[in-house]
Amino acid sequence: MCEKLTALRALMAREGMDAYIIPTADFHESEYVGEYFKSRAYMTGFTGSAGVAVATKDAAGMWTDGRYFIQAAAQLAGSGFDLMKMGEPGTPSIEAFLKEKLPKGGKVGCDGRVLYTGMVRKLQKALEDKDITFAIDKDLVDEIWTDRPALSCEPAFRLKLEESGVSAAEKVAGIRKEMEKEGVTVMLLPGLDDIAWLLNIRGNDIDHNPYLLAFAAVEKESVKLFAQEKAISAQIKASLAEDGVELMPYGDIYDYIAALEAENTVWLDTNKLNYAAYARIPAGVKVIDKQSPVTLRKAIKNATEIENTKRAHIKDGAAYTKFLYWLKSNIGKMPMDEITASDYLAERRAEMEGFLELSFDTIAGYNANAAMMHYKAMPGSAAELKPEGFLLVDSGGTYLDGTTDITRTIALGDVPEEWKVHYTATLRGMIGLSKANFLYGCRGINLDILARGPLWEMGIDYKCGTGHGVAHIGGVHEPPNGFRWRIVPERNDSCVLEEGMITTNEPGVYVEGSHGIRIENELLCVKGEENEYGQFMHFDVITFAPIDLAPVIPEMLTAAERKYLNDYHAAVYEKLSPYMNEEEKAWLKQETRAI
Amino acid sequence: MCEKLTALRALMAREGMDAYIIPTADFHESEYVGEYFKSRAYMTGFTGSAGVAVATKDAAGMWTDGRYFIQAAAQLAGSGFDLMKMGEPGTPSIEAFLKEKLPKGGKVGCDGRVLYTGMVRKLQKALEDKDITFAIDKDLVDEIWTDRPALSCEPAFRLKLEESGVSAAEKVAGIRKEMEKEGVTVMLLPGLDDIAWLLNIRGNDIDHNPYLLAFAAVEKESVKLFAQEKAISAQIKASLAEDGVELMPYGDIYDYIAALEAENTVWLDTNKLNYAAYARIPAGVKVIDKQSPVTLRKAIKNATEIENTKRAHIKDGAAYTKFLYWLKSNIGKMPMDEITASDYLAERRAEMEGFLELSFDTIAGYNANAAMMHYKAMPGSAAELKPEGFLLVDSGGTYLDGTTDITRTIALGDVPEEWKVHYTATLRGMIGLSKANFLYGCRGINLDILARGPLWEMGIDYKCGTGHGVAHIGGVHEPPNGFRWRIVPERNDSCVLEEGMITTNEPGVYVEGSHGIRIENELLCVKGEENEYGQFMHFDVITFAPIDLAPVIPEMLTAAERKYLNDYHAAVYEKLSPYMNEEEKAWLKQETRAI
Repeated sequence: MCEKLTALRALMAREGMDAYIIPTADFHESEYVGEYFKSRAYMTGFTGSAGVAVATKDAAGMWTDGRYFIQAAAQLAGSGFDLMKMGEPGTPSIEAFLKEKLPKGGKVGCDGRVLYTGMVRKLQKALEDKDITFAIDKDLVDEIWTDRPALSCEPAFRLKLEESGVSAAEKVAGIRKEMEKEGVTVMLLPGLDDIAWLLNIRGNDIDHNPYLLAFAAVEKESVKLFAQEKAISAQIKASLAEDGVELMPYGDIYDYIAALEAENTVWLDTNKLNYAAYARIPAGVKVIDKQSPVTLRKAIKNATEIENTKRAHIKDGAAYTKFLYWLKSNIGKMPMDEITASDYLAERRAEMEGFLELSFDTIAGYNANAAMMHYKAMPGSAAELKPEGFLLVDSGGTYLDGTTDITRTIALGDVPEEWKVHYTATLRGMIGLSKANFLYGCRGINLDILARGPLWEMGIDYKCGTGHGVAHIGGVHEPPNGFRWRIVPERNDSCVLEEGMITTNEPGVYVEGSHGIRIENELLCVKGEENEYGQFMHFDVITFAPIDLAPVIPEMLTAAERKYLNDYHAAVYEKLSPYMNEEEKAWLKQETRAI
Repeated sequence: MCEKLTALRALMAREGMDAYIIPTADFHESEYVGEYFKSRAYMTGFTGSAGVAVATKDAAGMWTDGRYFIQAAAQLAGSGFDLMKMGEPGTPSIEAFLKEKLPKGGKVGCDGRVLYTGMVRKLQKALEDKDITFAIDKDLVDEIWTDRPALSCEPAFRLKLEESGVSAAEKVAGIRKEMEKEGVTVMLLPGLDDIAWLLNIRGNDIDHNPYLLAFAAVEKESVKLFAQEKAISAQIKASLAEDGVELMPYGDIYDYIAALEAENTVWLDTNKLNYAAYARIPAGVKVIDKQSPVTLRKAIKNATEIENTKRAHIKDGAAYTKFLYWLKSNIGKMPMDEITASDYLAERRAEMEGFLELSFDTIAGYNANAAMMHYKAMPGSAAELKPEGFLLVDSGGTYLDGTTDITRTIALGDVPEEWKVHYTATLRGMIGLSKANFLYGCRGINLDILARGPLWEMGIDYKCGTGHGVAHIGGVHEPPNGFRWRIVPERNDSCVLEEGMITTNEPGVYVEGSHGIRIENELLCVKGEENEYGQFMHFDVITFAPIDLAPVIPEMLTAAERKYLNDYHAAVYEKLSPYMNEEEKAWLKQETRAI
């Protein structure tokens, strides 16, 4: 594989570049990227979801985080790229690495379309005193990668009004009002999720996300959609035109930006817009750099989205419950491993009406594997499941009704007493947040301790947020709502909780080398009583599937927690039993019994 | 009283002023002000703690908040000043009022020594387009107020090392290190609390706060203390000199600032420094405007301060408990009202060794009076206490060991069932926050819901923070720690909770016209276990006095809450019984019984 690095260095020499950066991104800062965009994986061999490769004339590194140290070390062997363990003492940041390796007046190359503007600015700032120039117009990997897969170009489709709840025209009108307030003439939208929501359009160009590759520009009178022509049928094109949306070739976004007249004021978000696009903004155009109002509006689901998402959850819960029945009935009686279990679950989801795809790669982790939060079982190394210990299964589906995310941790047989204590504390946290009643104005930072508290009481923490927003027929991670105890600006998940927001609630315990536990439901934020103290808010749970009672230590639960659990299980039986056959129904009755 | 306003307007005419502002402040932005500084009360008749009076040629208003609407309306009668109800719809802000009333190019007068810089800047900004000039050097009220009390000049005293724990020299050295890091040559300290802590000096110039009127300037080699010469004995002067502190006349601070050479970098806080001082900073002097490091260092109590404060709390709790015994034993048997009760409590405190003063005016509110959070019983209108209902008593003392703040709500006989529900929910909140275990890095905003949650569950809120920092031998309200669910920048009470910080925990229920409940202990933040998840923290309660069990509904408490309460009461008996006589002891045993 070292050949690829050698080839890259030859091209760098041709271009007079002293360094070349290959991040993990598409042109839109998407969470998942299509095959076309896996340049870093191609060049370095490392296939994990997060990593940035940087080559200089005589050094090459691949930066990734703790989740991937073991995998990356193995996959990078022979590539010529050294593993740079982010967050470990002694590991330089990319900025520090470049600062040390680059000559004064050196040149850094990259494909500016896959680096977001904020990242380039950070690099420029760090290298300020070295007089570095940036060459952003060369995709050198493309010259090496001869059998590169084509850019995905799956057919786009539009949501009907009964699927979206609000027409694209109405959404655009709302955005234009916000533009007007700020004196903005053009809003640039590079985010696939934002475009999908705004124009009620979906596609299939991204793993797990039903989005199409596109840019959009909202102007005062029209909306320009820059997308691959082949992805848009004549019928879709016509329906877009009816909504005042003009179709432009995907790659024309750069020329469009370059041609903006100086009297324009452009609203963009440098945390989302790629640098190749940003760099083309003509001098004289006024720029307002902040989050698009689409983000907040999208997160506040309308009545139709809520109704449909609830329906998706019932179907998804039924599929998950059928899987649980199969798992509990067959464990120890037939061979199964983490992958066969995942596959069985995926098949049950696929049977459900309107199923589109899994909303992320299923995490099915047995015992110690579940202690890795983002574990993915691989063929050949998947753990065999035995009638003992815990299996954690975190998964979800996207349906034409909505997108789901659910985790259960299932006792496949006996588990040690300590694991039961951890399980029950996790459950207490999950319940505590679910039944919160709070004044309007609260953010996730105010409520997080309700989920984390029962674990903190025992001196245990989980090193991640408690929950994240979920899109409607879209990405399983959606800003700006979430539960987390510290504000992390780049996560953008600490907004005020608004009626109609949907957030996951997933505390857990992760003991390295031993076991992992997570219990996750999704919560819909709703208005409660308004009185002299203000507007009270609470959550409606929208996820329905039995929570394994076998590892619950009832004495650890307060009376209120026990009541919550019993009421929840009664609702689970009521909602899901119509989907069950007689055996499943009898089993579900027992699994949802009051304790 | 209208004569005073007429006299003011005559002086304004003499000075060519179109408006004159009279705030409620001393030269140091102190929470309480001495008699000399009560200009606003003198001019308007309104004696409440918060209010700003503004007069123009033909209009005059007195702005205050909801706590004081009734009192202010009565006291302002005949003064010529209209009551301006802050926060009510239709009430203009002072800025808006001035903007409307002032002519273009007009002149606003005030005594710049009693307006802090941030406030003047806010006014200047709001009036920007009116070309207003500010005349800040005239104390016009002083010319009208012929029998004005003299500036307080009580003798200062210094704390011994066994009282302060750390010498002034060591504290100053620490501050100089922080100055050096920022390249600062002079730190201006206008806050009486900051000076008292830094120089281990106390006085008696402010109601309830054992502080002396002074400014300080920390330079690289010396410390200048600007104080009234008569307040400083020869002995104190000598001991200050030993610590490198040079005494200067109180009023010389202004000339000192005016004489600063241009090469200086001055650290100051425009939220504390008065505008007369700020305006004298010569052009060319570099200003760093942010909170002094004294604030954080002061809030983190050292081992001696902690030990001594704990001792103060035992004495204070003993006094409070003797009061409770007297109250419970005599209610209905002898006449008493809110004031006689307060007085009895004050006498018990005064008997304790090292007692200096009450740390604030005792709030003793019977039934509906307790629904007013800052109620102060007045002779003639104090409520008579009967053997029924709730008496809320919030009070504290400053001893040579430390300062305290405690609230109990006492059932004087039967109370309605609803009040018991409110009382028990308040107690649950108080307990929930007390027994928090949390990771280092948490702020009050993360924990507040532990106190507020049991009330929010019932659709009830209290419209204030849950708790505030308390100084050592100082003010009962000390930044930057506190418990509150929203960050309020001007409160400055949402810092990361550090080991050694002391914060009150005082949830409550306030039902207008009916009853008020508050239960308050003070919490010391301490380090707990450090493990792979991080540094855990928790609280040690340092307030000891029985919590009335009569209104507790035991079934509302979880097993863990009941255990906490019983353990707390066992500690109360253990700590306080040595201070009790035989009758009190027997009573205390019963009052602290396990439930």
